[in-house]
Amino acid sequence: MGMPSLSLPPSTLCLTLNLFISRQDIDAMLLLLRRCRRLTAGLSPAQAQRARPAASPAPSWCGVGGGSRSSSGGGEDRQTAQDPRWRPALAGLLVGTGAVLAYGLHHHKAERPLAPMEPALPVFSQAEVSKHGSLEAGVWVTFRGGVYDITDFVAMHPGGDKILLAAGGALEPFWALYAVHSQDHVLDILSEYKVGELDPEDQARQRAVEPSDPYSGDPQRHPVLRVNSAKPFNGEPPPELLGDSYITPSAIFFKRNHLPVPRVDPASYRLRVEGLPRPLSLSLADLKSRFPKHTVTATLQCAGNRRSEMNAVKQVKGLNWGIAAISNATWSGALLRDVLREGGWGPEAAAAAAAAAGRGARHVQFEGLDADASGTTYGASIPLNKALSEEGDVLLAYQMNGEDLPADHGYPLRVVVPGTVGARNVKWLGKVIVSREESASHWQQNDYKGFSPGTDWDTVDFKSAPAIQELPVQSAITQPADGAVLERDADGEVTVRGYAWSGGGREVVRVDVSLDGGKTWQVARLREGEEQGEEQGEAPPPPPLPGRAWAWKLWEVVAPLPPGEQQVEIVCKAVDNSYNMQPDSVAPIWNLRGVLSNAWHRVRVTVRED
Amino acid sequence: MGMPSLSLPPSTLCLTLNLFISRQDIDAMLLLLRRCRRLTAGLSPAQAQRARPAASPAPSWCGVGGGSRSSSGGGEDRQTAQDPRWRPALAGLLVGTGAVLAYGLHHHKAERPLAPMEPALPVFSQAEVSKHGSLEAGVWVTFRGGVYDITDFVAMHPGGDKILLAAGGALEPFWALYAVHSQDHVLDILSEYKVGELDPEDQARQRAVEPSDPYSGDPQRHPVLRVNSAKPFNGEPPPELLGDSYITPSAIFFKRNHLPVPRVDPASYRLRVEGLPRPLSLSLADLKSRFPKHTVTATLQCAGNRRSEMNAVKQVKGLNWGIAAISNATWSGALLRDVLREGGWGPEAAAAAAAAAGRGARHVQFEGLDADASGTTYGASIPLNKALSEEGDVLLAYQMNGEDLPADHGYPLRVVVPGTVGARNVKWLGKVIVSREESASHWQQNDYKGFSPGTDWDTVDFKSAPAIQELPVQSAITQPADGAVLERDADGEVTVRGYAWSGGGREVVRVDVSLDGGKTWQVARLREGEEQGEEQGEAPPPPPLPGRAWAWKLWEVVAPLPPGEQQVEIVCKAVDNSYNMQPDSVAPIWNLRGVLSNAWHRVRVTVRED
Repeated sequence: MGMPSLSLPPSTLCLTLNLFISRQDIDAMLLLLRRCRRLTAGLSPAQAQRARPAASPAPSWCGVGGGSRSSSGGGEDRQTAQDPRWRPALAGLLVGTGAVLAYGLHHHKAERPLAPMEPALPVFSQAEVSKHGSLEAGVWVTFRGGVYDITDFVAMHPGGDKILLAAGGALEPFWALYAVHSQDHVLDILSEYKVGELDPEDQARQRAVEPSDPYSGDPQRHPVLRVNSAKPFNGEPPPELLGDSYITPSAIFFKRNHLPVPRVDPASYRLRVEGLPRPLSLSLADLKSRFPKHTVTATLQCAGNRRSEMNAVKQVKGLNWGIAAISNATWSGALLRDVLREGGWGPEAAAAAAAAAGRGARHVQFEGLDADASGTTYGASIPLNKALSEEGDVLLAYQMNGEDLPADHGYPLRVVVPGTVGARNVKWLGKVIVSREESASHWQQNDYKGFSPGTDWDTVDFKSAPAIQELPVQSAITQPADGAVLERDADGEVTVRGYAWSGGGREVVRVDVSLDGGKTWQVARLREGEEQGEEQGEAPPPPPLPGRAWAWKLWEVVAPLPPGEQQVEIVCKAVDNSYNMQPDSVAPIWNLRGVLSNAWHRVRVTVRED
Repeated sequence: MGMPSLSLPPSTLCLTLNLFISRQDIDAMLLLLRRCRRLTAGLSPAQAQRARPAASPAPSWCGVGGGSRSSSGGGEDRQTAQDPRWRPALAGLLVGTGAVLAYGLHHHKAERPLAPMEPALPVFSQAEVSKHGSLEAGVWVTFRGGVYDITDFVAMHPGGDKILLAAGGALEPFWALYAVHSQDHVLDILSEYKVGELDPEDQARQRAVEPSDPYSGDPQRHPVLRVNSAKPFNGEPPPELLGDSYITPSAIFFKRNHLPVPRVDPASYRLRVEGLPRPLSLSLADLKSRFPKHTVTATLQCAGNRRSEMNAVKQVKGLNWGIAAISNATWSGALLRDVLREGGWGPEAAAAAAAAAGRGARHVQFEGLDADASGTTYGASIPLNKALSEEGDVLLAYQMNGEDLPADHGYPLRVVVPGTVGARNVKWLGKVIVSREESASHWQQNDYKGFSPGTDWDTVDFKSAPAIQELPVQSAITQPADGAVLERDADGEVTVRGYAWSGGGREVVRVDVSLDGGKTWQVARLREGEEQGEEQGEAPPPPPLPGRAWAWKLWEVVAPLPPGEQQVEIVCKAVDNSYNMQPDSVAPIWNLRGVLSNAWHRVRVTVRED
């Protein structure tokens, strides 16, 4: 049957959540969800026929909730089940986050289910399966020739109701997109829901149209990248390489994809621009010829950069980025401002829109051409005033470091929003929409936001926090590496290098470095743009205008190693020209999505005497 | 003779330094400087006649410098004198900072000088005194009928060479301006330099023209203000009052004056605007009638707010502000942008200026009408793009909270630069200058800047740091007060209230409050503008536009007191929409001027059981 064509409301809720869940997590979650399933539904006829080797799926098994976070024994589980707190926890599940399960449930992992005993099962045709395409009619799916009634499982799916896209059809195309499903435990759990076999003729038809790996069109990547996720591809360069060049070569520029890399034909490519007095449809040639070419050196940083340090405090959801989900490049393209003006956006349009609507447009939405199996594309938005400002420097970029954009970085066109979190710099740009509303996408509404350390998946209200736009001040040590062993030479000195950057065009004005864990500090030398440009053999960039310092600064300090010490903790912290400074420690800025990790960076090294 | 009219190069270096030095400090400094004076000059004939009861003014007494900071005994002093480090320390003195002495010298305080024995001294005429009006001719001054040769003291004056303004004349007008001199130790030290008596006829003439207290024209202030300095006036409201009203009543709005309040005649007042194609001279009526009236609710904060917490870590220079050097008001006036455009500043002027100069104007300087005895006025500047931006909201304000500006807040006209440190919001505005350069004033160049904790008065290079403009994210607890005793009632709850604000128009999006010193956190309720406006019986303000959140947020949380605890540490920290957060602790942000004190605010309370 191939891709199911259900007319469900587009929901992106689970799209990336799946991508952020580790395989261990999903094992634990699915196992527990299975044990809990009687909580949410009665038995269907098919289930009643099914063998249930994993007994006792009673509420008392359901150690789900805040209360179990610190538990470690079975007795605690029983208490938790009686605790009214399990109810909001389950509600958390039902809205599809699932991730609430991540913390307290590892103690369930040891209990692997036995392989279910399979009685002889009936054979169903694809036509019969297709009738079970909704919660009302029951949700059936096929997988490798089996037929499964997963009606009861839908509410417990860690990825939310995205699972309904497969209702009445085959799981294979979805599991190909979300490789996290390819593990034994997932198959174990699925097997419990088996209600029959698919007619062999229909199996043959299905195989004939089975989609290939949606990631098979992804480009080759540089082998030096540390891969945090292969599908979609997410990788970061080694820190020591990152810190060595002011302009990051495109091949090692960190890559953060949410979906397969789309193949875009540059000849037929059109950018649509909407929400304007004169909507536009622009070819690449239009973008290059009708608007002045503008070049900006800008650092992009993933909201999840340095997430691994938050994970060390307490597990969060997301890719386990080190310190290198940040890079700096030179971008060239048309100014978004110029394009919007070409479409008739100006003071008059703004005034008219405001008068007509009571409240004017305030956002510019971007839609990527990268899409999931349902056709939902990546999307984000930025404030309209950033896009329109003479000093915003927002680009519709077709070049990176002087060449066509690489496939991984948005060929043929992407947005570059200097000073703004990577997630808003939409790649493979298909559409620009001036709007009263922010992007409705999952990534704008329910993902890249910051919360208090006390907020967990039970209590989080994504509407309560603003979408991340400008990022806070940041710095990290790229040399020496954490855990390095240094030889104490005659000088007794160590060279410490790193990067520093701040969002919103705020220039980094100082980096303090400590060799005693933060007790005393010295000021690092900022390797200014000029010197950094020279290193690249390029013309030195002009000094940044106030509020337009889009590029990072690399820094260096040569400092005496504390005499006699064999364990040295090196720390850095940066200050920007709003005099915001990095916070001291990770725990007080910890948040459930592991974003905005910008505490002092600490590197512990061992000093060996000569 | 009244005010001396010397034509010295205008120097403002010591102006505020004096104001920031505590009386204890100046005691210690002057005493030590006196002991050190042989280091810098030979003996003048007059000195040779003078009695010297405080013997041994040899270099070995001069425990000045970084090395003495941790010293506590006389033996250490000798070592320090031999230490080459005393040389840069002395250099620090010579450029007039003087404050280098503050730390290590308190152990000298116990050694008060004996009253000098006074032999019969010659009588000098004012004409004779006036001949000694320079370092070359010797520096003589008069005070209460005595004549003093202070030539050797000039280089050691903690306030720098400002002292030369009095050369050949009377000290009284200067000491009236800088009330810090009115203490016994200063008189003791002066007495050592006495060389004669002033002719009684000249004394009578002097008394006839003696200026009145330059602060005698200052307005009455509300008695509830905590006075940090009476002359010039610096006062802050009680925190519990501050936190009670979204709009701070003008009478208790914190007051930070650098000089006497000037009396300005509104009828003859003119604002001069220079550096434009068409320079302007605008009356108050012009400002009110020729430009649209624009109203902004904006919080102003002194760079030194919460300095007392830095003092608790290590002594800094400056007024010992608590948490209330911040207030919020509604300001009305003409947009600076509109005025600059009236003077012909626009894209064309900017382009022409840039083409002519190779580099265009980048700053707008402001000069106040408040002046010191030499006529040097208060001054500051802001980046030109802030002034010109449609979204900068920079006002030439003639109203505060709906009424004419009060005298203490700049009557008849001041600049209000929303989102920017108080020091740039120049009061009693006399002149606006569009310029390629920042203001040359002391306060722009050598005062309101931030440095690393490792930077001290020996090593500081004021050119190495940018002038503070936007301030970092800030919050503090206004209730309960530090040290409060709370009764644990039946609810066992405490109400915690405070303020939160960030510079640059960045909206505060969250305040976290901890009742266990920062281990666990809950989210405070932000009392939004609407509710806050209602409290004032005013129309609710519209929600702030992105990047234009100029006003603070008051917040509140009602939280359970930790059971059983009698000592509770309450902590708050704010997050703005760039997701910058306050740093955890004070020591790593400590700086020698005690500015930018924005660590978590901590309040310790005692809980008494019911």
